[in-house]
Parts: sequence; C-alpha cells; structure tokens
Amino acid sequence: MLGPQVWSSVRQGLSRGLSRNVRGWASGEGKKVDIAGIYPPVTTPFTATAEVDYGKLEENLHKLSTLPFRGFVVQGSNGEFPFLTSSERLQVVSRVRQAMPKNRLLLAGSGCESTQVTVEMTVSMAQVGADAAMVVTPCYYRGRMSSAALIHHYTKVADLSPIPVVLYSVPANTGLDLPVDAVVTLSQHPNIVGMKDSGGDVTRIGLIVHKTRKQDFQVLAGSAGFLMASYALGAVGGVCALANVLGAQVCQLERLCLTGQWEDAQKLQHRLIEPNTAVTWRFGIPGLKKTMDWFGYYGGPCRAPLQELSPAEEEALRMDFTSNGWL
Amino acid sequence: MLGPQVWSSVRQGLSRGLSRNVRGWASGEGKKVDIAGIYPPVTTPFTATAEVDYGKLEENLHKLSTLPFRGFVVQGSNGEFPFLTSSERLQVVSRVRQAMPKNRLLLAGSGCESTQVTVEMTVSMAQVGADAAMVVTPCYYRGRMSSAALIHHYTKVADLSPIPVVLYSVPANTGLDLPVDAVVTLSQHPNIVGMKDSGGDVTRIGLIVHKTRKQDFQVLAGSAGFLMASYALGAVGGVCALANVLGAQVCQLERLCLTGQWEDAQKLQHRLIEPNTAVTWRFGIPGLKKTMDWFGYYGGPCRAPLQELSPAEEEALRMDFTSNGWL
Amino acid sequence: MLGPQVWSSVRQGLSRGLSRNVRGWASGEGKKVDIAGIYPPVTTPFTATAEVDYGKLEENLHKLSTLPFRGFVVQGSNGEFPFLTSSERLQVVSRVRQAMPKNRLLLAGSGCESTQVTVEMTVSMAQVGADAAMVVTPCYYRGRMSSAALIHHYTKVADLSPIPVVLYSVPANTGLDLPVDAVVTLSQHPNIVGMKDSGGDVTRIGLIVHKTRKQDFQVLAGSAGFLMASYALGAVGGVCALANVLGAQVCQLERLCLTGQWEDAQKLQHRLIEPNTAVTWRFGIPGLKKTMDWFGYYGGPCRAPLQELSPAEEEALRMDFTSNGWL
Amino acid sequence: MLGPQVWSSVRQGLSRGLSRNVRGWASGEGKKVDIAGIYPPVTTPFTATAEVDYGKLEENLHKLSTLPFRGFVVQGSNGEFPFLTSSERLQVVSRVRQAMPKNRLLLAGSGCESTQVTVEMTVSMAQVGADAAMVVTPCYYRGRMSSAALIHHYTKVADLSPIPVVLYSVPANTGLDLPVDAVVTLSQHPNIVGMKDSGGDVTRIGLIVHKTRKQDFQVLAGSAGFLMASYALGAVGGVCALANVLGAQVCQLERLCLTGQWEDAQKLQHRLIEPNTAVTWRFGIPGLKKTMDWFGYYGGPCRAPLQELSPAEEEALRMDFTSNGWL
Repeated sequence: MLGPQVWSSVRQGLSRGLSRNVRGWASGEGKKVDIAGIYPPVTTPFTATAEVDYGKLEENLHKLSTLPFRGFVVQGSNGEFPFLTSSERLQVVSRVRQAMPKNRLLLAGSGCESTQVTVEMTVSMAQVGADAAMVVTPCYYRGRMSSAALIHHYTKVADLSPIPVVLYSVPANTGLDLPVDAVVTLSQHPNIVGMKDSGGDVTRIGLIVHKTRKQDFQVLAGSAGFLMASYALGAVGGVCALANVLGAQVCQLERLCLTGQWEDAQKLQHRLIEPNTAVTWRFGIPGLKKTMDWFGYYGGPCRAPLQELSPAEEEALRMDFTSNGWL
Repeated sequence: MLGPQVWSSVRQGLSRGLSRNVRGWASGEGKKVDIAGIYPPVTTPFTATAEVDYGKLEENLHKLSTLPFRGFVVQGSNGEFPFLTSSERLQVVSRVRQAMPKNRLLLAGSGCESTQVTVEMTVSMAQVGADAAMVVTPCYYRGRMSSAALIHHYTKVADLSPIPVVLYSVPANTGLDLPVDAVVTLSQHPNIVGMKDSGGDVTRIGLIVHKTRKQDFQVLAGSAGFLMASYALGAVGGVCALANVLGAQVCQLERLCLTGQWEDAQKLQHRLIEPNTAVTWRFGIPGLKKTMDWFGYYGGPCRAPLQELSPAEEEALRMDFTSNGWL
Repeated sequence: MLGPQVWSSVRQGLSRGLSRNVRGWASGEGKKVDIAGIYPPVTTPFTATAEVDYGKLEENLHKLSTLPFRGFVVQGSNGEFPFLTSSERLQVVSRVRQAMPKNRLLLAGSGCESTQVTVEMTVSMAQVGADAAMVVTPCYYRGRMSSAALIHHYTKVADLSPIPVVLYSVPANTGLDLPVDAVVTLSQHPNIVGMKDSGGDVTRIGLIVHKTRKQDFQVLAGSAGFLMASYALGAVGGVCALANVLGAQVCQLERLCLTGQWEDAQKLQHRLIEPNTAVTWRFGIPGLKKTMDWFGYYGGPCRAPLQELSPAEEEALRMDFTSNGWL
Repeated sequence: MLGPQVWSSVRQGLSRGLSRNVRGWASGEGKKVDIAGIYPPVTTPFTATAEVDYGKLEENLHKLSTLPFRGFVVQGSNGEFPFLTSSERLQVVSRVRQAMPKNRLLLAGSGCESTQVTVEMTVSMAQVGADAAMVVTPCYYRGRMSSAALIHHYTKVADLSPIPVVLYSVPANTGLDLPVDAVVTLSQHPNIVGMKDSGGDVTRIGLIVHKTRKQDFQVLAGSAGFLMASYALGAVGGVCALANVLGAQVCQLERLCLTGQWEDAQKLQHRLIEPNTAVTWRFGIPGLKKTMDWFGYYGGPCRAPLQELSPAEEEALRMDFTSNGWL
C-alpha cells in the first residue's frame, strides 16, 4: 500500500482521468476546496460515564491518519452530534484539528434545525479549524421543507460562512431527500462546493453530477455500500462509516475505481456490502463502535438512548465480517 | 358558553361518566395529575427580527385564558422548540407560567435527542413552573429506537423528573411511532401519567387505552381532526393546534363528547377537519400563525428555515376555513 | 340477541337517529340501495386439493345467516378473488345468492385491473344475482392512478353497470388510497351509492361523509378495528373480516353505536381490536381461516402462494382471542 | 454501429472479460440459457377501439430487430399484461415469436397472483414459443408474502416449468421487494436462471450478485437509469423501457460497459437518466407510448384506466428528451 503523501498525489493525477470534477481550484476567487477522496466520519468516544473521551479521540485519529484518507468528517451522523452540547461539538472539532495531519481536510458537521443557529455553528466551526462545513438538512418540520425553504436555508448559511459548504442529505436519519432541483440551484452558489448524498440512489447521484456539470460541484457518496457505483456515475469520493474499521480497504476501492480496475473493484466492493450495511443501518453506531473495538480502535459506549448490541446482534454483526473474510 | 371555572368542575363531573381514566389523584403518593381536557399547543411569537416576542406571548395567553382549556402545552411541535436555545425554551415556559391562570395546567415539552439532556431539560422545566413534562420521542437515530431503547429513555427521564411525564408520539415530525408495547410497559411507571398521540390512528389509541386500563394512564389526542373519535375510544382530551384559533369550538366539541351529544358532536367535528388539516400538516406552523393573525391573536413570522405561505397557499388556507363557515 | 328480521327493522329505525345517510330509497329513480349495516366478507373455502368447496361455502352461509347481518360481501380481499378464475368468481357469487336469505344484500367484488374487464365482470355479477358491485381500485399502475384516471374508471363502470356500485379503497392491498376529491366527485354519480374504506384513517372517513353530505352516498368501515369510530364520524356500517368469526359481537357493536350506548360500545370495541388485527393484517386470510375453524365454521386452506400459519403464529393468533375473552 | 449478428459474438467475447456470469451453458443438464444482454420490454399496441393491434406489434418488432438486442421481453409491466385476457397474453407472445429473429431470446412474463395459475400460464407461454418465463412476484397479499411464501411459489413454478424461470422484482408496481435471502435460496434451483430487478438499489444488486456467485445465476437491471451502475456491480444486462425508443443508445451503453470504456459510458448514462425516468415512473406507459410515436414506432393509446398525457405532461416529457439532446 502506498503511504498517504504518495497516494495523495497519485489520487490527483488519477482522478483527472475519470472525473470532470477535479480541478486546480483557483486560490484567489470562486470555490477553493477540492474535496475528492475518502473520509471516515469520525465517531465520538465516550467514557464509561458518558463524558467525551478526548484522549481516545486523539488515539483513534493518530491511527486513522496512517491511512491515505483525504480527510476526516467530524460530526456527521456517526459522530452522535445530536447528543453533544454546542461546546462539546466545537471542542471535538478543535481536538481533531490538532490531532490530524495538516494536509488533510477537516469537514465539520454544523447543521442545526434553525437557519440562524446553523450559521452561528458554521462560523464557530471555522474558528476552531474546520476546512469546510457539512450541513445536514433541517428535518423536524420536514413537511414544510420544500425546495424553496431548503434553498433559502443553505443560501443563507453559505452566504455567511467563512468556509466552503457541503450539502448533506441523509434520508435514513432525516426522513428527507434534498430535492435534485434544490441541489442544482444551490450548486451555483460560489461557497457551496459539493454534496454528501447518503440516500443510496445512484441514479439520483448520476443525475446530480450531470445537471451540475457546468458548476464547480463535487458529489461524495455517503456510504461504502454504493461507493463503486457512485464513482462510476461521477462521484469523486465518499464519506464512509466503514472506513473507521476497514479504512485501507475503502481507500483501495477508491484507487481501483480511479485507475479503472473495475473487475478488481467489483470483487472488493462485493465483499464490503454486508459489513457496510452492518455498521450503518442494520446495527447503527453501536455496531460501528463494537466493530472498532475489534479492529484496534476505541469504540466504547454510545450515549443514551442508543443501546449496546444484544449478544445475538453482536453475533450477527461478527458474521457479516467473517463471512466476507474480514475477521 | 360556560366560563372557565364553571366548566372545569363540569368537566370533572362529566368525564367521570364516560371515561375510566378520571380519578381523584392521591396527593401523597403515586400519580398526581389529571390531564383530562383540551390544550392549545402555544406558538412562540417572534418579532420581525426573529427575536422571541414575550409581550405578544403574554397577550396571546391572556386571550386564550378566557376559554375553558384545561391548560397549555408549551413547546410542543407547534412551539418551534427545535429553533429555540435552551435558555429561550426555559424563558418561554417561565413567562407562560406567569401569564396563565394558576388553576390551569402547564405541560412543557422537554424532549431532546439525548437521554441525559432530556433529563436536565425536564428538571429545568419543573423549576420554571411546568406542571408536567411532555417528552417527544428522540428520533434522529430512529433506526435504533427499538422499544427497549425507548423504554430505557423514558424510564430514566421519569425516574429523575420532579414532575409527571407525558409520553409524546408525533410520527409526522419524528418518523417514529412509539410502539404500543413500549407504551404499555411505560404506563406502569409511577411518574408517567399519560400520552399525547398525534399519529391519527384511533385503532391504536383504542388499543392503548384498552391495554393500559389497569394503570393510571391517560391518553390525549394530538390533533383536533380525530378528537371526537379519540373520545369515543377512551381518550380524555386533546392537544390541538386548531385550539389556538378555534378554541371555543374545540372546547365545545369536548363538551358534546363528554355529555354524550354525539350527533351534534359529529356535525361540529366534520366542520373542523379541513381547518385542522390546514393548520397542521398541510400548511404547518406558517399556516397556523397566519390564521392566528386572522382570528385576533398574534401569529407573526416563523424562524427560518420555515417560510411564509405563498399567496396561493394563503388563499387555500382561507378557503379551508370559509368553506366550513369559520371565516 | 334479536333475530335477523326484528333486528333489520330496528336498525332502520335506529339509524335514522344518528346518521344522515339512511333514507327511504325511491324505487323508481336515482339511487336504489341502502347499504347500511354489517357484512362479513365471505371467505372462499377450498378442498385439500385447492378446488373451491361449494358445499362448505353453503354451510358457512347458512350459519352466518342466523346473525343479523345486512348482507354478505363476496370477493372482497378476504375472498381470495385474485386467485379465482373468472368463472369461479361468478360461480361463487351465484352459489352464495342461492344459499343466503333473500332479504339480505349481496355485494360482489367485481374489480379488475382494466376498465373494460371490470365492466364485463360487473355485468356478469349482476346476472348471477349480485345486488351491488364493490369495485376495488385498479392498482398495478398506481403511479398513474391519478384522481382523473380513477374518476374515469369508476364513471365508466357505473355508467354501464346494471346494479349500484360501491367504491372500495384498501391501501394495505393496493398501495393506493382513493383520493378524497375523487370520492367526492364520484359520489354525485347516480349509480354510485357508497364506499368501503379499509384504510383506517377515520379523519378521512369523517371528511368524506362531510363532503358528500348532500349526496346519497354511504360509507362503510372496512374493518372492525375502527368500526365504532367510523360510526361516530358518520359511517353507516362495516365490512368486517372479524364478522366471519365474531359476527354476533360485531353486530352487537353496531347496535350499541346506533342506540347511542357509547360506553358499552367502547368496552366492546376495545376487546375486538386485537382479534381484528390478528385476522387482518397480522395473519391475513390464513389467520382468518384458522380462526373460522376454531369458531365452528369451515376455514380450511388458502390457495398458494398463501401459506399456512406456523405453530408460533397460530399460538399468537390464539392469544389475541383468549386475552380478550373470546376463546 | 455493428449489426446484430456481429454484435452478438462480440458481446459474448467481451462479457467474458468483466462478468463471471457468462458461461457456455451445458445443453444436456442444469441451466440452459444465457440471458446476458439488453431487452426492450415490448409494449402492446392497441387500436383506437382498444383491440390488440397485432399488425402494429409486428411492425414494431421488425424495427426493433435491427438493433443488437439480446431479445425481447413480452408482458413485462410495460406490456400492460394486467389488462390482457389470458388468450390475448398468449396470442401476443405467439405473434412476437413469429415476428422476431430466431436467434434472439423471448422472455415472456407469466406471473399471476396464484401459484397454480402462474404454473399454467408458464406452461402455455412455453408452448407458444417463449424461451424463458419472467415471473413477477405475486403482490395483492403482500403482507403475507414472506420469504418462505415466495420461495414456495417460485419453487413450484420452476419445478413445473418446461422453460427456465427468471425472477422479477418491481416494487414500484408491486409494493414488494423480493427479499435477498429468498433470491439466494432460489438461485440454487436448476431451472431458475436469473433475476430482473427493477428496484434501482444497486447495493442490493451487488449483494445479490455476490451471494449467488457460486450459482449459475444472472442479474438484469430493470431500468436504463441504473444500467451502468448495475454493470459495474456485476449485472449482465438490462430490461429497459427506454430501449423501445433509444434502443441503439442503450445497446451502445452496454458495449461501453462491457469494453471497459467507463468514461464514455458515464457520459452516455448521464444523458439517459432523465429520458428514462420520463418513460417509466414519471409518465408511465402513456409517456413511453407517446415517445414511441415520436421515434418512429407505433405507440398509440393505452387501455383504460391508463389515461393519455395532458398537454403539460407531454411538454415536460419532450423537454426531458430535448434537454439531453435526443430530440
């Protein structure tokens, strides 16, 4: 396996081949960040008494940093952000910034339900070192979250954010798909650089890539289960919970896709589907953290109301890894 | 129409007839609050610059207090609680406590995503004067919100709450129904006194009433659209957005149900369905607030990302009231 | 319990009180059938080799006819009509006609996917003795079944049908709710006399009753689980799978509702919810037929691909009856 | 463009590269058909009086046969099979068999609700010349269509079918996904050769390919919108409504995928997404037939209750083609 630095330049060279989306971003104007690559959405470690364990957080970061990730997503859905106070959210981002290599990107989840609070959180995230803000769709009033409302929300956030904004659609958690027409409109905003789409509908991903092809706009797959298909359709990377435990393999899948080794990519992708499903919607963050314990990271407990896996669930989780040769 | 005080004693007498659920709550032990009756879920007024307008809040409360409501729900879904800071949430409850008559109940929404923060918010709500806490289901990780997780969550909150707890299930916002088996288990907790069910499935409401019949447990309908049917099935009241604008009529419907005047109740219920749908899922809080402006209350703007109604929406909203004879 | 004949006249007298929908239907013009009352949707008995067992069908009918039903629904969803050939469908209706008392109504399910075939089936159903046709929404192309398409379909069928037409919406099977606006339009057709709504949303049922109040249009609840609530909202009866096994009790519930004995009605309704759920969506027709065997009727096997209950399912089914005092 | 014969041998050579699924099928035992390739699901032309227009059917077939399709699907969902009588279904298959080149495959939809009738229809389809039977999941009783029930159904059909069986899952029409575990079990049946999956979830398609990799089992994408992604994940072809109008382009996409020209494939795939959506779930068969009229085939009317497009719909349909450069 290539080391991170070498791989970084390899990625840039390779990705120019397949994707239209990788450019030399002008530094003085317009959009400024190339977000292509793989990111683990970092979990938030807790002590036995449910305090944030910043030491374990740093340890995990140090281990993850040996892998050729483009960067880290902090406080995506896997970061248990809805359970953190505002100051915890900022403190976690700050500590990750310090623990991670300087040449990687830090994408910080800054979405809140209200537009105003999201703006404030985004500004604060920038102040503690985030390179870009990943903003989940507000969702409690999903019945009124029309394209117009969401365009208004994201435009306001992007207008006022000192760092680039990445849209984030995750219907399994929010019950809401950011509509394609809203994405297309928002892609024209100079401070909105891309999108993380966790919905798993690659036809939709392809359509978004197609309809934003004249914009500087990049799409990241939101899960390792449809990562290869997303590359095929024009996505430029992924934010993958599974990369917290099988990070080398997810980066290997990236490399196979970018170098056009589709047969090997397919074989690897196949073996990642069940483990990926297991640590995402099947067993959620409790499953992901349990698996992290198995793979040499610190997983530990979740905050309540998330519960530990039952023994039967843990067994099924293990089977999803062993049956594919990963344990 | 009867005045509030007279009506209060009438209600207690009447409801003994129909419902099994109204008891003299022992003051020294066990469950202590009879929540039977009608509640408007109070909206949070904002100024043109999106600050909480406490003056308008008090004005609305004074007007609403002339009606024979059992009390007020503060920071239900209609209170835009996800858009308020913690201190705003507490301040709003505190001001409502001061503005409302002492003999009414104040049910305060204290639900948050994490169990720990929900406990803290519940304790704080009690300190600022709430009579009971209405706790919405956590929902961001709905895929892991099994009955076991929800039972754990509510048990912890009820154990530590100084005031009685009311379960709150509102699938249109949360994408999650609190399962019947979880409700039945939780109904046995000495500090859980009832449930607000906004799902609209009266078969489910009937089943919950039936399976908790040996507990001190009361069910409130979460919307005026199925209020009469809920009374028929054994609910003891309702938390009705529509009561913010047609409060006298909703209380009249209560009286007709409790006194067994089902034919008149049916006629009135029929005329409330479309207006109710309009101010809830069809046009949401923007629709409710617009209607409040029409009916002599202060509605005003919502916080973003909620948007004002379009002229066409406003016209359709008005039609839902005029076609039923309310405007 | 009253005998059928006595009960029939009682029903007519009583229902005039509560419901606006029971009229003396003019025989010479306009709508001609009063469908108010309770109907079991008759199951189709099969032999061990999956032939229709007409003898058992007649035996069941004779037993069911001792109860004060308004009539029988043949080839509703519980009749396994999608598994029958056209000639079997007609033969079953013909045999039921012969076996049942003359003063009861025979509502025959005649819905097919195409409009033309539905018309032909409806005409044939009339020829073999159906009093009215119950026409389920076509559903395979549900994505294109707009209100306009459904209005066109039902209008054509009603235009050409020699017998009155009853609309039938059963989203659990069809994935499709007949929209309220379509129902309102269709209620004006002189040959469309009512609707069976199995969706369980009594707010919707109330709205339909309200918006068709100026038409000769009657609504039947499609399940015993929300029968009492439907009566409260203005429905005039029900087509209840549960009536195949607890027919006397369902008719008793009707009587309690029509005579305004709402407290007793509530108690009875409560005890019917779990058994009703068990023989409908929880265990389907296999559950209903198994229960019929327990209650002295012939249930027997279903046609494949419907499978027999597992022992664990059968145990759970039994529990739903025993725990409510019915076994 | 290559002619059909040349292309056929090219395909076989090429597909050996990427896919594990193309083999020399032994003629004396086991599975006998290689279904890899592209198929248009043929529409059923009707006259102005809604009779099947066999002449137009043949004309369409002759035109389509100039394209390098692997074969034709007759009476998939786009064939309006639910609107045809049994004899029409067989007659259509028979006429297609006569009109099409001998070296193409004829996959005939033979699914019905009951297992027994499906068996009979499958046998009849074989008699009139079908090479394989494509069997849609029964769905009216979807609540009881467990894996066990579906395994029983398909096993019975495959046991008794003289021709190979292709599973067919189309949740947009049936409201039912054939579960992965059922597919894996059924893939071991010697007479079940593959599956058409129209659900659009390519993670699921990848998982099915992965878990059936030791069987002779081939997966076809059920729509052109996710065709390229399906090839990437291991599917061997597609049944694509869009191939009725942009057949050359869909075959070109196949060729680009099989020859590893992923960049060009991506560009082409992108331009096909909106047209594909337009002729499938957005505007359904009426949209597909209208487009056929534009592209030199006979589209004509649908049988009722399917309605013609409104002028506004027709305009939107046209835009989906023109904006992508196809009109």
